Amino acid sequence: MKREMSILAILTLIILAFNAGVALAGDPTGANLDGKATYESLYANQSLKEAVGRNALAINFVWVLLVGVLILFMQAGFAMVEVGFTRALNAAHVVMTNFVIFSIGVLGFWAVGFALMFGGAGGLASLGGLDPLNGLFEIVKGWGIFGTKGFFLSGDAYDVGVFLLFLFQVVFMDTMATIPTGALAERWKWAAFCIYGLFVSTILYPIFGNWVWGGGWLAKLGSNLGLSHGYIDFAGSSVVHAVGGLTALTGAYILGSRIGKFNKDGSPNAMPGHNIPLAILGTFILLFGWFGFNAGSTLAATDLRISVVAVNTMLASAAGSLAAMLLVWGLFGKPDPSMTANGMLAGLVAITAPCAFVPAWTAVLIGAIGGLLVVGGVLFVEHKLKIDDPVGAISVHGFNGLWGVISLGIFADGTYGTGWNGVDGAVRGFLFGDASQLAAQLIGAGVCLVYTLSLSYLFFKVQDKIMGIRVSERQELLGLDIPEMGSLAYHGLVTSKFESRGEAA
Amino acid sequence: MKREMSILAILTLIILAFNAGVALAGDPTGANLDGKATYESLYANQSLKEAVGRNALAINFVWVLLVGVLILFMQAGFAMVEVGFTRALNAAHVVMTNFVIFSIGVLGFWAVGFALMFGGAGGLASLGGLDPLNGLFEIVKGWGIFGTKGFFLSGDAYDVGVFLLFLFQVVFMDTMATIPTGALAERWKWAAFCIYGLFVSTILYPIFGNWVWGGGWLAKLGSNLGLSHGYIDFAGSSVVHAVGGLTALTGAYILGSRIGKFNKDGSPNAMPGHNIPLAILGTFILLFGWFGFNAGSTLAATDLRISVVAVNTMLASAAGSLAAMLLVWGLFGKPDPSMTANGMLAGLVAITAPCAFVPAWTAVLIGAIGGLLVVGGVLFVEHKLKIDDPVGAISVHGFNGLWGVISLGIFADGTYGTGWNGVDGAVRGFLFGDASQLAAQLIGAGVCLVYTLSLSYLFFKVQDKIMGIRVSERQELLGLDIPEMGSLAYHGLVTSKFESRGEAA
Amino acid sequence: MKREMSILAILTLIILAFNAGVALAGDPTGANLDGKATYESLYANQSLKEAVGRNALAINFVWVLLVGVLILFMQAGFAMVEVGFTRALNAAHVVMTNFVIFSIGVLGFWAVGFALMFGGAGGLASLGGLDPLNGLFEIVKGWGIFGTKGFFLSGDAYDVGVFLLFLFQVVFMDTMATIPTGALAERWKWAAFCIYGLFVSTILYPIFGNWVWGGGWLAKLGSNLGLSHGYIDFAGSSVVHAVGGLTALTGAYILGSRIGKFNKDGSPNAMPGHNIPLAILGTFILLFGWFGFNAGSTLAATDLRISVVAVNTMLASAAGSLAAMLLVWGLFGKPDPSMTANGMLAGLVAITAPCAFVPAWTAVLIGAIGGLLVVGGVLFVEHKLKIDDPVGAISVHGFNGLWGVISLGIFADGTYGTGWNGVDGAVRGFLFGDASQLAAQLIGAGVCLVYTLSLSYLFFKVQDKIMGIRVSERQELLGLDIPEMGSLAYHGLVTSKFESRGEAA
Repeated sequence: MKREMSILAILTLIILAFNAGVALAGDPTGANLDGKATYESLYANQSLKEAVGRNALAINFVWVLLVGVLILFMQAGFAMVEVGFTRALNAAHVVMTNFVIFSIGVLGFWAVGFALMFGGAGGLASLGGLDPLNGLFEIVKGWGIFGTKGFFLSGDAYDVGVFLLFLFQVVFMDTMATIPTGALAERWKWAAFCIYGLFVSTILYPIFGNWVWGGGWLAKLGSNLGLSHGYIDFAGSSVVHAVGGLTALTGAYILGSRIGKFNKDGSPNAMPGHNIPLAILGTFILLFGWFGFNAGSTLAATDLRISVVAVNTMLASAAGSLAAMLLVWGLFGKPDPSMTANGMLAGLVAITAPCAFVPAWTAVLIGAIGGLLVVGGVLFVEHKLKIDDPVGAISVHGFNGLWGVISLGIFADGTYGTGWNGVDGAVRGFLFGDASQLAAQLIGAGVCLVYTLSLSYLFFKVQDKIMGIRVSERQELLGLDIPEMGSLAYHGLVTSKFESRGEAA
Repeated sequence: MKREMSILAILTLIILAFNAGVALAGDPTGANLDGKATYESLYANQSLKEAVGRNALAINFVWVLLVGVLILFMQAGFAMVEVGFTRALNAAHVVMTNFVIFSIGVLGFWAVGFALMFGGAGGLASLGGLDPLNGLFEIVKGWGIFGTKGFFLSGDAYDVGVFLLFLFQVVFMDTMATIPTGALAERWKWAAFCIYGLFVSTILYPIFGNWVWGGGWLAKLGSNLGLSHGYIDFAGSSVVHAVGGLTALTGAYILGSRIGKFNKDGSPNAMPGHNIPLAILGTFILLFGWFGFNAGSTLAATDLRISVVAVNTMLASAAGSLAAMLLVWGLFGKPDPSMTANGMLAGLVAITAPCAFVPAWTAVLIGAIGGLLVVGGVLFVEHKLKIDDPVGAISVHGFNGLWGVISLGIFADGTYGTGWNGVDGAVRGFLFGDASQLAAQLIGAGVCLVYTLSLSYLFFKVQDKIMGIRVSERQELLGLDIPEMGSLAYHGLVTSKFESRGEAA
Repeated sequence: MKREMSILAILTLIILAFNAGVALAGDPTGANLDGKATYESLYANQSLKEAVGRNALAINFVWVLLVGVLILFMQAGFAMVEVGFTRALNAAHVVMTNFVIFSIGVLGFWAVGFALMFGGAGGLASLGGLDPLNGLFEIVKGWGIFGTKGFFLSGDAYDVGVFLLFLFQVVFMDTMATIPTGALAERWKWAAFCIYGLFVSTILYPIFGNWVWGGGWLAKLGSNLGLSHGYIDFAGSSVVHAVGGLTALTGAYILGSRIGKFNKDGSPNAMPGHNIPLAILGTFILLFGWFGFNAGSTLAATDLRISVVAVNTMLASAAGSLAAMLLVWGLFGKPDPSMTANGMLAGLVAITAPCAFVPAWTAVLIGAIGGLLVVGGVLFVEHKLKIDDPVGAISVHGFNGLWGVISLGIFADGTYGTGWNGVDGAVRGFLFGDASQLAAQLIGAGVCLVYTLSLSYLFFKVQDKIMGIRVSERQELLGLDIPEMGSLAYHGLVTSKFESRGEAA
């Protein structure tokens, strides 16, 4: 009776008690539960060490699975933030890019991306005469470029541990993939977007991911070149956020600005979003999920550092939000909602790499700088680069992602990370005596910048040549929802311009 | 000092360290924590086996409690999906059916439903001379119809294990209960809805639930009739979703279509929803909660198969969404948002029964078929059955629920389910050599169909005779919010038709 | 290879299996995982008792961290409820008070509040000649007023256990802090609100919190005065909710009512909210988070009473909602959405103190009384006190918070709480033979009332004298979003009155 067995596994003693007859009362505190019977039902023929080890595995499975699901929920946060900060006549289009990227990304990463990222660190490197890969997690001697095992989660990858790792990693990939949808919003062609989704989930994200998290060459800057622990990005300031934000940069550049965004003299016009409450809801959802993102990146709850990671994440979010609010309040006279929300996200992006390595006051400082940086970044992108980024994704994720990995190289305090990337000793930043860690971080940040800008530029450019990635001017002027999605976001509440003109879409 | 003792239980060593004086520093990684002191504070006089068993119990309590809460949150998902896909003038009414069903359901299941479903498997069967039930989880020899213990969670049921099981099961019931509110939306009388809530939480859901999950007769098709493992529905494709979707079918049929839905020649008119972003938010919330729904259905995190369950759930959701999107895109020229969202839900419903028994590629296939099925189902219900289902609940939950349990009988790959329902060996579907498992699944699906359609038809028919279940034509035309709820959903934004006509509601 | 080591910690056996070569297949159920290898990788040189203890610590870290994050998400619930129940032209202002209070609160509590609340129970008391504090959790002999250690989480507080406690406690503080934003909505000056946030997170909340949860004098009413177990508030009916609701009362009183709320004869006008679906979403989010709030307050999942706590929480929420709905339906003819939602919140607030100490039927009763009380309370505040509370926060949190702690003194059934506050025996209420527990509860409730009303009154009064806490009449009439925040909530959907008048804000 497997179903009943499952219940038994939990509730052995309750059942024993109940089955003993009506004379036995319930156990309202659990004080009378017989742990030994539970032991026998779960670990009958196993040694105590085995049983303790399996309990530890179960703890970590619970942890990784639940934080994975928390991170997945961030997709809803991005959707609400982006729809809230854009205009009503494109709302169905914007929200659907955030919705469908999830599905495209999951299938792309399942088929190809996961294997490239975690299927060993060989790839091209192994062509150079190195040992062939023989396992998913084997770390080859030499420099790794991409992995080659685990496509479609088939064969040996049909394994509870591999599936758990996939679950956790696929949601990071989808976070990266959904970042550019905000910067390219309100003018992106749907079919072009779909192909973009396949590209980032199968190629762009997994390759750089392999270099940092899959045992690839940036992780080996330490063991191979002596640069301290090699490049470290704890939870993805660069792997997820900078890659996302920089892809948003090239995409928005090639796509061009929305009609009406810039005047003929190059000065920008404000194009405010249509739903601040939804955008703030989205920001809260992102904050909520970010605790999974960061604290979950230990991959083990038996690593009790998770509490420090979580508190640092919270402190940086608060500091980023207040710093941005105070700066815009000072500069422009009002505590602008969108900047205040983006300040929180900036603080979160910045603390994502260093969160496990710094004390509380440093988290506040890193977050606050993130908040200032996002305000400056938004002004820089709009006024200097003349790029139209409707939601500020380039500054929030791109600039702060890079700041995050660099800040680790400055502030890591030497209390954590012993043995990281196979190098002895804890991780220390420049201020704590290890300049070579900062060097590794700068190299990693530089590689991230060059890799992402060039590969994503190439992709968007080629795609634009082949199929065109922008909607027609008429569609853009009248709103994308009817022509692209076939459905208004707010039927009966917001009148389509097609309708008011009496035209067909 | 119990409060302090609780802290002690966690933080024993911290406190010891701190109390030893200022000379002792904090422990920023937890490396110095003294596990032995924690052991002594929690398990002082217990053997190691007892302690390990109690740790396992605690792991499973954490798991079941947290996934239960995730599932509960799906109520918010249903609320947002249904309000988003219906019209603004009924928005308060629609959202409140999804809100109040929770409360009615919880109290109905607490008072009656839980006992009928899990209070043993005797009921009418025991009248036939079988042994009387003497425990909540005892499985009687014979065929079970309903349980008889645990009403009001009183007496022996005042027990930490029973309460945990109640928590987990009540949220499944409420998921079922909230499904029909979408299909019956925009014309359902509030008082009739309230009585419906009591009926499904006390009778309709628990009885079928007992047959499948409470040790009742469908679970015994294997041990009693030799049909392999008997009827298996891992997480409720049938128990929750098909019962919900088929109840939606009879309800929407008896209630009749909304005014204006069908023309005189029987052709349907589109009545688009008023808030796509909210509907997508709701879909994301449902996806989020579904990981609790499916992975949680092991009832034990010490069963590491949870990672396979979770990944299969995710893959099927993605495949369902993309399959539906591509099909409607091909058929009608646009990637319709509501179909794309319903495709995800369809994939989720379909994978709910087989998620623990199949490999990744099969999950993709089952989900994709679910996505195609929901598009076909919606067209079938609207064009052939001429039933008005504003949100597509019949196709999403009804048709795909049945597909889900059948797919298990086809694709179960023999890697899981050893001993399920008291039958030796792992669970195999038709393609893996066990035709009798498919037979059991078809019987279960058929019973679900007949049971639900007939009992729910009877209920709605009788209720309609007694009190009338539909609002007046005038109320429907002017919007239900004012006459039924006394409050507009969007006061100041959407003008009531009563207001614009200068009439009282 | 620390990153790999983390993976190793979880997945030791998978890796061993994979590295052994391609001949070894994946492990799709986890049945072949070698727990002993996991043991060796995590607990190599530790005794079995140490390892079991560390597993227990990890379980409780997972539990506290995840419930802490659930509670944090309640901020989003408050934001949606408050924005939904107020008017569209103030929506950005309302939602931003709920957003920014989080950040202000976090930094205030980090810098000052946490230390005052949990940094020992000495404070002023120690000036009277008592032993000086020498540890964060030391309980001094005598009466405690506030703590003195742990400012900025620096020094010895840089500790995984202390950070975990901070994470859990800071979200309770922020819940309290966000309650008054609803009652003061639509007329509160932004700068005044920001200073309020600092005040409550550093002073108002932590001081009373120290008395109840930090080992302060109310917790010692038992050991010092013989009043049974002293004052008990399990999860914060008073510490969080009554303090919040009573601060809302003085704030709304001093701020005055919104223009148009009361007629010259003192009769009130309804000022309905603009978005019921968002308000209901917010209520669901609060319900979701409340399971963390209450069940998490054991601070340990190894205390299996968490299932009883969670079920009681759910039952009270359902009963509160239905009781309020039926009462307003009977009184005014319609099942008003806002009262039904507030009824659920009222039930939740009421059960928060007694949830761990009562059986299921009592939870239903306490919640139902809460639901009736909130309806009566709203009418009383509006018609008798003539105070304008746009969202009903005073009744939901203030009145029901007091009811919650008193109900514990009546209904605690003697099955839980052995040793609480250092007093032998389980906790019993008046109905179970312990009148002195009820006396302690009445004293605590009275102290909460007097402390909160007087200190918050003083604060608002002084602040109003110094800087003025209310916006100008013109700003209020035209909507706060443009003048206060610089941004409309619904740009393009809701026309600013400034715009329609052709005036500058």
